[in-house]
Amino acid sequence: MKSIMVIADGLGGRPTDLDGKTCLQVAETPEIDDLLASRGAGGMIDPIGPGVRPGSDTAHLSLFGYDPYQCYTGRGVFEAAGIGMDLTEDDVCFRTNFGTVDEEGNIKDRRAGRISEGQDQLEEALSSLKSKKYPEVEVRFKRSTEHRGALCLRGPDLGGEVTPTDPHELGIPIPDSTGEDESSEKTAEILNEVTHQASKILSDHPLNEKRKEQGKLPANAILSRGAAKYPNVTSVEEKYGVTASVVAAGALYIGVARVAGMEFKEAEGATGTVDSKIINKAKVGLDELDKGKDMVFLHFKGADNASHDHDAEAKVKFIEKVDETFGWLKENIDWEETHLSFAGDHTTPIQYGDHVADPVPVMVAGPSVRNDALEEFDEYSCRDGGMGRFSGNLLPITLSYSNLIPKFGA
Amino acid sequence: MKSIMVIADGLGGRPTDLDGKTCLQVAETPEIDDLLASRGAGGMIDPIGPGVRPGSDTAHLSLFGYDPYQCYTGRGVFEAAGIGMDLTEDDVCFRTNFGTVDEEGNIKDRRAGRISEGQDQLEEALSSLKSKKYPEVEVRFKRSTEHRGALCLRGPDLGGEVTPTDPHELGIPIPDSTGEDESSEKTAEILNEVTHQASKILSDHPLNEKRKEQGKLPANAILSRGAAKYPNVTSVEEKYGVTASVVAAGALYIGVARVAGMEFKEAEGATGTVDSKIINKAKVGLDELDKGKDMVFLHFKGADNASHDHDAEAKVKFIEKVDETFGWLKENIDWEETHLSFAGDHTTPIQYGDHVADPVPVMVAGPSVRNDALEEFDEYSCRDGGMGRFSGNLLPITLSYSNLIPKFGA
Repeated sequence: MKSIMVIADGLGGRPTDLDGKTCLQVAETPEIDDLLASRGAGGMIDPIGPGVRPGSDTAHLSLFGYDPYQCYTGRGVFEAAGIGMDLTEDDVCFRTNFGTVDEEGNIKDRRAGRISEGQDQLEEALSSLKSKKYPEVEVRFKRSTEHRGALCLRGPDLGGEVTPTDPHELGIPIPDSTGEDESSEKTAEILNEVTHQASKILSDHPLNEKRKEQGKLPANAILSRGAAKYPNVTSVEEKYGVTASVVAAGALYIGVARVAGMEFKEAEGATGTVDSKIINKAKVGLDELDKGKDMVFLHFKGADNASHDHDAEAKVKFIEKVDETFGWLKENIDWEETHLSFAGDHTTPIQYGDHVADPVPVMVAGPSVRNDALEEFDEYSCRDGGMGRFSGNLLPITLSYSNLIPKFGA
Repeated sequence: MKSIMVIADGLGGRPTDLDGKTCLQVAETPEIDDLLASRGAGGMIDPIGPGVRPGSDTAHLSLFGYDPYQCYTGRGVFEAAGIGMDLTEDDVCFRTNFGTVDEEGNIKDRRAGRISEGQDQLEEALSSLKSKKYPEVEVRFKRSTEHRGALCLRGPDLGGEVTPTDPHELGIPIPDSTGEDESSEKTAEILNEVTHQASKILSDHPLNEKRKEQGKLPANAILSRGAAKYPNVTSVEEKYGVTASVVAAGALYIGVARVAGMEFKEAEGATGTVDSKIINKAKVGLDELDKGKDMVFLHFKGADNASHDHDAEAKVKFIEKVDETFGWLKENIDWEETHLSFAGDHTTPIQYGDHVADPVPVMVAGPSVRNDALEEFDEYSCRDGGMGRFSGNLLPITLSYSNLIPKFGA
């Protein structure tokens, strides 16, 4: 049997969203409701645990069945993996921004005017980054969208407890990084050396001459944050014995899934925003199952973006797009051989605009599932569902319905 | 007050069991239902945790209130304890089979033709087993039913991380065991030495001469698997301050309970199969309480056997026998002074025929219990029960209703 796990990021809401109702209550979701009523059971999930405000990375680790308190090291590693960097246990990774530093050496813009072209040339120029003191350490930089990128240092004895060189502040010089212990001090030293090198390389780069001529801010610095050593996460193949693909657009989600050993598959028109063609993700997902994968993880990001933007209308609209995608899935899944689960990775209420600890509705559907009486999927009705309230672990639950996970004990 | 905990092994089912219903739904259980309706409250239990596929040993540890992730070392120790071997922290134990090796030294049968008589003579002959290199290590062998038995090595610095000498394969020689670390390497060395000695002793044994004359396969080898060091499990007396008995038939369950400090009591006609006279277990159980024990653990195995055999009819029939036993218990328990709990140790669906992670119905009955509205005990109705959904720990929950466990903190 096969498994599909679908996460709509930031799906959960509060009664303060829209006239006493959550966006999920207001949205028309006939397809999800019908799937739940006909083949499913619902409940409420604490993505990590009751009273824990999840980050997106920690929530996904927990939903995949890993204990984020044991394995979470920081965001950088997932961002780097998410933009396609191949990582090993010897890597320490950072999220980076191209930034602008003025002639006095003070940070003028943390995003280099949201630079939107020519970053490939800068990436190329930065391929020469190298520590002189620690030549055995491999230094890699990769750009992502706009000003975003990742920096990875690979080598022995590199700690991950270092302060950022991105101060989240303007008008001050790029601060030196410092490390909490000996191995982290080594990492900080290399980061500082590489940051200076990058400033030199970028300042002299013709693209920045051109940008200045055009009245644009030069991308003449790399600002690093989110330091993270490679986490102690075994692959889903090792942990559960399954082969897996991820179809997502946001680098962070792709990164968490790749670190968990899932193969990334791109879907046309998938953007990680409210405009994403998420139905194409569903199509790629079912293709992956057809091609032999045991499971696929689909990630839809838009509801969270709308929530962070305090835009209830956009959230309702995106949820209705998710519902259409479920309509397509409902018609095209082989329901005798497949289990599907669906939840949010956290609640992001419209007023507050950030993640909160409130539990999130969850459902599972398929032939092994003990169907319950629920007919609507939202934060209120799912509290009466047959799954009750539980924490994390949605992936192994879904896989177990398809008889795909190993036994613990004999 | 007193406590009784009853586990029906493999009780839980799926809608795929029998025409869209579970075996527990199909079975007539008027006595259990009446007990639940009149004095009880129900819920759903994850024997270990959501999304965890329990083994029988790990599930029972968790139900008893131990954390199997902390204390589980392997099955061998429970099998050995279950057939009556007294164990200490210095023991490493294996499950064994009498096997047949051919003249070329290759394994011909892993069960010595399911040898059914004379094993006592073989056990007697094997009492001379002894390591020459490590004479301080005590080597003990004990037979169980048919070809089954256990081997225990007792001595200082014996690791438990060793490979089996039972390859689960025919036509190859008995493989040498190897250890993962220094202390396990020592264990492997002794196991190999003892395995060779056993082959010599058994090959020369008159019983095997006789078996060959009768055209039967000789029991001329010991095959070992399931290596386990004695686990870090304190007794229920130390942990909860209670005296306890176990009435069961399967060696594994007796073993887990004995390691947890419960005294084993035999019941006449209790076989650990669907034909077991389980009502006699209930009678012995209440006797134990009368004789002064604080609690008794009753284990009924048949529902799991039927599930592994994909036999829905046999499972329904066994559940109805469990129900009759509850009828007797209902009449004979002193309900002013006693709490009873009842659950499965995991779900074993008929189609799949092995344990899965789906939660299991659970109930508690007695004077301290907040009675709920449930009138039927099964995988569907219990989802609406007053106990909600929770993980493991059924024993301390039961004991606490009888005011029998110590406080954590002040």
